[in-house]
Amino acid sequence: MIAVVAKNYVKAEKIEEFLQIAKDLVNATNKLDEGCISYELYKDPKEANVYTILEQWESYQALESHTKAKHFTDCIPKLGELMEKPGETKIYEKLV
Amino acid sequence: MIAVVAKNYVKAEKIEEFLQIAKDLVNATNKLDEGCISYELYKDPKEANVYTILEQWESYQALESHTKAKHFTDCIPKLGELMEKPGETKIYEKLV
Repeated sequence: MIAVVAKNYVKAEKIEEFLQIAKDLVNATNKLDEGCISYELYKDPKEANVYTILEQWESYQALESHTKAKHFTDCIPKLGELMEKPGETKIYEKLV
Repeated sequence: MIAVVAKNYVKAEKIEEFLQIAKDLVNATNKLDEGCISYELYKDPKEANVYTILEQWESYQALESHTKAKHFTDCIPKLGELMEKPGETKIYEKLV
């Protein structure tokens, strides 16, 4: 199993727009992507304007298919315009 | 729902010992702690000696009870001795 922690630094004035796009992405991913165990949007209460997507996938292949899916490729450019700075994405492999 | 990303920087020569204690902690937590949705040990393939526990809890209360549970309080001092430097723990609140 693969986990992804994807941190997004959103421009303060673009949060509403980000939340709408991110929510649509979360819903589409959970609905459409095979091998998606969980794909959820979180907020760090201690970091303003930082929104983190926590993902769990059955395999690297499932994650890779997701990154090629239309609902993902459609929104990435739009999301990119809303960011204060580049995000941080960490990919983890499950041990136990 | 609450998620926790707890990063551990383990001394290279203490990895075996860490894995044993961490595996016992993961198993006990999943078995005993109420409100525990998932509690899993992951490895970042790009970061040697870095082991991350990804946790999902129904509430802050569930997380707090976990931190007072014997299987947690017993192993924290032992784990502490195995660390290269202090870990990083992030707590997130679910939005979607």
